[in-house]
Amino acid sequence: MFKIPKYKHPDFNKELFLAAPDVKIKRVIKDGVAPNNYHVTSMYPEYFKVNGRWILATESRMDCVPVIIDDETIEMKEFRNLKVGDQVIIGRTEDGSEGIYLHVNGFMEEEKEGDVFAFRTGRSRETAFTKDYEELVELLKYEKENGYIVWVLGPAVSFDYSSRKSMADLINEGYAHAILAGNAVATHDIEGALFGTALGQDIYNQDSKPNGHYHHLDAINKAREMGSLQRLVENGDVKNGIVHACIKNDVPMVLAGSIRDDGPLPNVYSDVYDAQEAMRSHAKRATTVICLATQLHTIATGNVTPSYTVVDGEVRPVYIYAVDVSEFVLNKLRDRGTLQGKTIVANIQDFLGKLRDRLID
Amino acid sequence: MFKIPKYKHPDFNKELFLAAPDVKIKRVIKDGVAPNNYHVTSMYPEYFKVNGRWILATESRMDCVPVIIDDETIEMKEFRNLKVGDQVIIGRTEDGSEGIYLHVNGFMEEEKEGDVFAFRTGRSRETAFTKDYEELVELLKYEKENGYIVWVLGPAVSFDYSSRKSMADLINEGYAHAILAGNAVATHDIEGALFGTALGQDIYNQDSKPNGHYHHLDAINKAREMGSLQRLVENGDVKNGIVHACIKNDVPMVLAGSIRDDGPLPNVYSDVYDAQEAMRSHAKRATTVICLATQLHTIATGNVTPSYTVVDGEVRPVYIYAVDVSEFVLNKLRDRGTLQGKTIVANIQDFLGKLRDRLID
Amino acid sequence: MFKIPKYKHPDFNKELFLAAPDVKIKRVIKDGVAPNNYHVTSMYPEYFKVNGRWILATESRMDCVPVIIDDETIEMKEFRNLKVGDQVIIGRTEDGSEGIYLHVNGFMEEEKEGDVFAFRTGRSRETAFTKDYEELVELLKYEKENGYIVWVLGPAVSFDYSSRKSMADLINEGYAHAILAGNAVATHDIEGALFGTALGQDIYNQDSKPNGHYHHLDAINKAREMGSLQRLVENGDVKNGIVHACIKNDVPMVLAGSIRDDGPLPNVYSDVYDAQEAMRSHAKRATTVICLATQLHTIATGNVTPSYTVVDGEVRPVYIYAVDVSEFVLNKLRDRGTLQGKTIVANIQDFLGKLRDRLID
Amino acid sequence: MFKIPKYKHPDFNKELFLAAPDVKIKRVIKDGVAPNNYHVTSMYPEYFKVNGRWILATESRMDCVPVIIDDETIEMKEFRNLKVGDQVIIGRTEDGSEGIYLHVNGFMEEEKEGDVFAFRTGRSRETAFTKDYEELVELLKYEKENGYIVWVLGPAVSFDYSSRKSMADLINEGYAHAILAGNAVATHDIEGALFGTALGQDIYNQDSKPNGHYHHLDAINKAREMGSLQRLVENGDVKNGIVHACIKNDVPMVLAGSIRDDGPLPNVYSDVYDAQEAMRSHAKRATTVICLATQLHTIATGNVTPSYTVVDGEVRPVYIYAVDVSEFVLNKLRDRGTLQGKTIVANIQDFLGKLRDRLID
Repeated sequence: MFKIPKYKHPDFNKELFLAAPDVKIKRVIKDGVAPNNYHVTSMYPEYFKVNGRWILATESRMDCVPVIIDDETIEMKEFRNLKVGDQVIIGRTEDGSEGIYLHVNGFMEEEKEGDVFAFRTGRSRETAFTKDYEELVELLKYEKENGYIVWVLGPAVSFDYSSRKSMADLINEGYAHAILAGNAVATHDIEGALFGTALGQDIYNQDSKPNGHYHHLDAINKAREMGSLQRLVENGDVKNGIVHACIKNDVPMVLAGSIRDDGPLPNVYSDVYDAQEAMRSHAKRATTVICLATQLHTIATGNVTPSYTVVDGEVRPVYIYAVDVSEFVLNKLRDRGTLQGKTIVANIQDFLGKLRDRLID
Repeated sequence: MFKIPKYKHPDFNKELFLAAPDVKIKRVIKDGVAPNNYHVTSMYPEYFKVNGRWILATESRMDCVPVIIDDETIEMKEFRNLKVGDQVIIGRTEDGSEGIYLHVNGFMEEEKEGDVFAFRTGRSRETAFTKDYEELVELLKYEKENGYIVWVLGPAVSFDYSSRKSMADLINEGYAHAILAGNAVATHDIEGALFGTALGQDIYNQDSKPNGHYHHLDAINKAREMGSLQRLVENGDVKNGIVHACIKNDVPMVLAGSIRDDGPLPNVYSDVYDAQEAMRSHAKRATTVICLATQLHTIATGNVTPSYTVVDGEVRPVYIYAVDVSEFVLNKLRDRGTLQGKTIVANIQDFLGKLRDRLID
Repeated sequence: MFKIPKYKHPDFNKELFLAAPDVKIKRVIKDGVAPNNYHVTSMYPEYFKVNGRWILATESRMDCVPVIIDDETIEMKEFRNLKVGDQVIIGRTEDGSEGIYLHVNGFMEEEKEGDVFAFRTGRSRETAFTKDYEELVELLKYEKENGYIVWVLGPAVSFDYSSRKSMADLINEGYAHAILAGNAVATHDIEGALFGTALGQDIYNQDSKPNGHYHHLDAINKAREMGSLQRLVENGDVKNGIVHACIKNDVPMVLAGSIRDDGPLPNVYSDVYDAQEAMRSHAKRATTVICLATQLHTIATGNVTPSYTVVDGEVRPVYIYAVDVSEFVLNKLRDRGTLQGKTIVANIQDFLGKLRDRLID
Repeated sequence: MFKIPKYKHPDFNKELFLAAPDVKIKRVIKDGVAPNNYHVTSMYPEYFKVNGRWILATESRMDCVPVIIDDETIEMKEFRNLKVGDQVIIGRTEDGSEGIYLHVNGFMEEEKEGDVFAFRTGRSRETAFTKDYEELVELLKYEKENGYIVWVLGPAVSFDYSSRKSMADLINEGYAHAILAGNAVATHDIEGALFGTALGQDIYNQDSKPNGHYHHLDAINKAREMGSLQRLVENGDVKNGIVHACIKNDVPMVLAGSIRDDGPLPNVYSDVYDAQEAMRSHAKRATTVICLATQLHTIATGNVTPSYTVVDGEVRPVYIYAVDVSEFVLNKLRDRGTLQGKTIVANIQDFLGKLRDRLID
C-alpha cells in the first residue's frame, strides 16, 4: 500500500533563520519585465522571509519570479504576467542570507550508503523496472481516491488499438483527472473512432486503407462542423476512445495547438501561452503526472509542475513519470531539473496495457 | 556545378486529358469547414481542369483544400481559412477522371534498373553521405544567387560555439534568406552573446557557470526590456551569433512560440496558426529548405512546403534537407510524405562546420 | 488458431523450367576458397536443376555456396568449410537460365491492392502492434507442440526480475526448444540466482549493493570451479532463472564467447565459428526464432536462418521476430535481407511479461 | 600545445600507509579458478604492499586478479589465465587496510567549485564539442611522436568514401599505431578497394550495384585465395583504404572474429580470447584510444585498457575517446566504469573528416 512520505519543514528556530533578514523587493516598472536581480524559483519548496515570518510558496513552478501579494501569499509569476507595481523578490542566494531559503531535502528518505563505484547509475532500457511498475500501480490506486492524476499524452497513444483502449479504460475507471495533449492526439483518436485508423492505417492490423490519408482530415472537418468535441461525441459518431472517455466522464482535456497542426480541431488553444496557463492550472492541482511519448508536452508540463504541492495544509510530493522508448528524451527531461521524475523506457503500448491490466479487473 | 532539373508538364493533348471533365465544386457554407467530398493536396504538382483548361496550382502545400479564385488561380487553403462562399474543388481521384491530375514524375530522372535484392535501402548512420555533401555545397552556391534558402533551426544550433558561429557566418555570407525557429533557439543564441553560455553552460568549454541557470532568463528579460530583438542588437549588447546576423543582414526570422517557452522573447508568435502562416509565407518562396535538429519545426515546415515552386514561370524542385543524429526523427519526416527530402544523419555541429568551411574561405 | 500457410512449388512443367540446362559445377581446388563465378544463396527457397530434375535445397542459409553432394542433396557450405574436390554450383542468375531458380513467393498471401500513397510504411515505435502480439501468441501455442522455437537472448533479459522470471517460466512451460546467447546473459542470470543482482545492481529494486561489482566475477568463478553449468545447477546453488530452467528441461543453450567477456563461463564457445556451427545446427531445425535485445546475436542468427524449412517433407515458413527498443537495430536486421522477420519495438521486459501472461495461466 | 598532466603518487610516508599490513595471498589450486576472497582490479592505479613496499601495478586492466610474480612485479591476470600455484592477492578493500590501495585522483586537476544545480550534466548531441575537438587534435599531434595511438573501428568506417579515405590518410600520416577491428571492417574496406562498394552499395554515390551482394563475398574469397591480407595487398589488387594503409605502414591490425562473420578473411582470430589477448597487448602500450561506431569492440577495448600507463618510468593517463551517433552506446561505455573516456556524439564520417583536415594539410 502506498503511503505519502512525510515532509519536514526547516527548523526556523535555528540561528540561521532567526538571523536572516526579510526579503528585499523591487517593483516592476514595465509590464512583463522583471527588475534587476530578480529571484527565480526552482521546482523545490522555497521559503521567503516576509515581515519576520518564513512563508512557503505554494503553487510554485520553476523559472518564475516570486511576487509578494500580501503577508501570507507569494505568487510565482511568469515574466509575461508581471505587471507594473508588482513587488518582486530580489536576490540570487538560496541559503537564507537574503531571506530566501531553498529546501531540497524536505521529504526524508532513508539515507543510502554510497559505494566507491557502481556500474549503471543512469536509467536506461537495461534498468530493472519491476518495482517501479509495482509502486506506480499502488500509487495510482491511492491517487484515484486522494489525488489528482494528470496524463500528458503524445500521438502514439492513439496509434494502436490496445493502447488507445487501455487509456480510455483508465479514464473511464477514474484514473485520470486531467489530460494534457496536442491537436494530434485528439485527431488520431477521433479518426480511430470514425474509421478505425490513424493517419489512414488500421490501428489493429496495420493495413493502409484506400484514400486513408483523407481520414484524419475528414475527422477534423467533421469536428469543426460540429463546433466542439462535446457535440461531436454527443452526436453519437464517436463511440469510443480517449476523447469520448474524457467527455463522458467530465475529465478536462487541454489541447495545445502547434505549428504542425492541420485543422485544428475545435477546443484547441491557438495561443501557446494561453495553453500553458491552462496546463499550469492542472499542474497546480496535480499530485501525480504521467507523461507518455511526447518530448514537447513532457518538458512543457515538467516546466510548470513543482516537485511538491500543498493538500489540506500538508506538503506532499508530486510524482512525475515519463515513459518513452528513447533514453535521449527521458534523459533530457531529467537534465532540465525535473529531478523528482521517474523515467521508464518502454513502448507506451506495453506500458498502458500493463497498467490497465493491473488496475482494472 | 548545380543545374536545375527540367520539369515536364503532362501532355494535355492526350485523350485522357482532353476527355476529362472540368472539376466540380461545392461552396463552403460554414467558415472553416470544407464541403463533403472536398479534395486535398499533396506536396506534388497538381493540375485542375477549369473551363476546359488544365491549371497548375502554384504555391501549394499538402493537406490543403483547393479553392478556385478565378479561371487562372487556384488557392490552397487550410481548413481554418475557408470562408463561406469559397468554391472548393470536389473529388478524391488524382488520375484526371474528375478533372484532377497529380503529376508525381514531372522532374525527369534517369531511370535506374532495379535489382532483385539490395541491402541497406534506407538511410541511416551507415549511409555514405560524401556525395550528398558535395551536391548540397553546389546547390547552396547556386541558390545563394538564384534561389531562396530557408533554414529551420533547433536549439542545438546555439549550444556549441562553433555551430553557432558557423550558422552566423552562413547568414552573413548570404546563404540564408529566412530562418524559421522557436523561442529557444533565439534565447540560447542571445544568452551566448551576453554570457558565452547556453542554459548556463559555457558553449566553448562546457563549464557550468555559477548561477548559470539565471543566464537564459536574464537574456529573455533584457530582450523584453528592450522591446524587440532589433533594438537589443542595435543597442550593442548582442555582438555576434544568429540573431545578430539576421538583424544585421535583414534576414527575416520567424520565431514560433511553444508551450515550453519561458519568457517569451519579443517577436515570438504566441498564436501557432499565425506562426504557421508566417512560416508558409517563406515556404512559398523557398527553393531549398535545410532543417537542423528539430522534429517539431521540421515536420511543421515539411507540412507547408511543396515539392516544387514556380520561379519566373518555370516549375522547379524545392530541395528539402533534414539533418539530425536520430534516424527516428528523420524517418518520421520521410514517412509524413515529405518524399523529396534528403536526410543526413549527423550532429549538426559537424554539419554546419563542414558546410561553412566548404562555402566560405 | 494458427494455421501454417501453404507452400506452392514452382510449376516445373513450364517451358522455362523444362528448357533450362542443368547447373554447371566447378570443383574446389583450395580448401576454403570457392571457384570463380560460384553461386551463393539467399534466405529464400532455391532450386537447382541436377540431372534434369529440380531439387530444392533444404537446410539452407544465406551467403553460402551450394555444393552438390549427390543427385538428391545439395549442401549449403560456408566458405571456410569448402574442401578440395567439392562440386560447387556456378552461376549468378536466379531465373532458371543457368539451372538455378529462386522462388521468393512460394507462400501465397492474399494480394493487397496498393494505394498511390501511404503514410508510415516502416515499422517504428508508432506502429500498431496489437495484432502482432495476438498472432505471436497463437503461433507459439502451435509451435510448442509442432515446431522448434529458438530464442536469441541479449543480456537485458537478465537485468530485470520479471523479465528473467518470465523467460524462465516460458522455458519451463515448453515454449523454448533452444537458447542462443552469449557469455553475458548466462553470467548475469547466474549472478541473479546467487546474489539477486546483475552487475551488482538489485534486479528487483535497483539498489547498488556494496562491493556489488564482485558479484558477476564471483558467479563466473564459482561456475568455473564447478566445471560446468550443469554441475553448478545440480549442486543446488542456482535455484532459478534461465540457465536453471534450461538445464532442468534439457533445453540446449549455445553460449558464444565474445571479446568483451570476463571469465568465461564453462560451456562457452571460445571459437566463434564453432559457435556459429552450433547456432546453425539449431537454426536448421528452427520453425520460429525470437530475438531479444541483441544486435550481434540477432544478426548472427538471422544470417544462419533460412526463411523456410522442410518438416516431414512439407515446406513451411520460419518465423523470425526481433524485439528491441531501438529502431536502428531492428531496421538494420531488415536491411540485411532478413525480410521474413517481424520487428517489434518494445522494452523486452514488457514483451516477455506480456507473452508469459498470455501463454501461461 | 598538449602537455601531459603530472601524476602524483600517494604519500607513502603517511601513517595510513606505514601502518598497513602486507597483502595476503592465496595460491591457485585449480587452473582458471581464483581462490576465495580474491581481489580484482579497476581501471585506476592500484598499489599493493609487498614485503613492506608499495608497488604500483603496471599493465593493469579492470576485472583481473592481481598475481604476485616477484617483489617488484604484479601481473593482472584474467581468470582463464590463472595457473595452479599462482599467488593471488586476497582482500576486497581498497583503502590500504589490507595492503591494497586504489588511487583514483593521481592526476591532479584544478578543482572546480560545484554549483547547487546545473542543467545538462550528461554528454549528449546537445553538448558543446568545440573544445573537445581542439584538444583531441593537439593530443594526437603529441601522441604521433610520443605515444601509442590505438584505433578501434566499427564497420561504418568503411561505408563512406570520405571516412574510409580519411582513416587511411591518418594511418599513412602516422596517426595510428594499431588498429583493432572485426572481420567486417576489413571486408568492407577490401570490397571498397576492389569494387568501390560496401555490401554492394557504392560508397561514393549510394548506388546499389547489380549483383552487388556478391561483392563482399568475392572480396573475402579473393583474400582467402591469397592466403593473407599481406599478400592481397602486395599482389596489387587492393590499392587504397584502411587495410592497404596498415600493411604499407606496418601498422598492426587485430581482426577479431565474430559469430556474424562470413568468410572469414585470413588473419582473423577465430578464438575470441586469443583476440582479446592480442587486443590487450596493444592496450598495454596504448596512450590514446579512439573508438568509432562499434559497441562491441569499444566495450571490449575499454575492458582491457587501464586509465593510466607507465612510459619511461612515468605514470601518465591513457585517453579514451568513443564516438558514435547513439548516446545509448556512449552512456553504456561510461557506465561500465570506463570513466576516463570522453564521448563524442557524431557521425564518424564527419568526425574522421574533421580530424583529417585539421591534422593533415
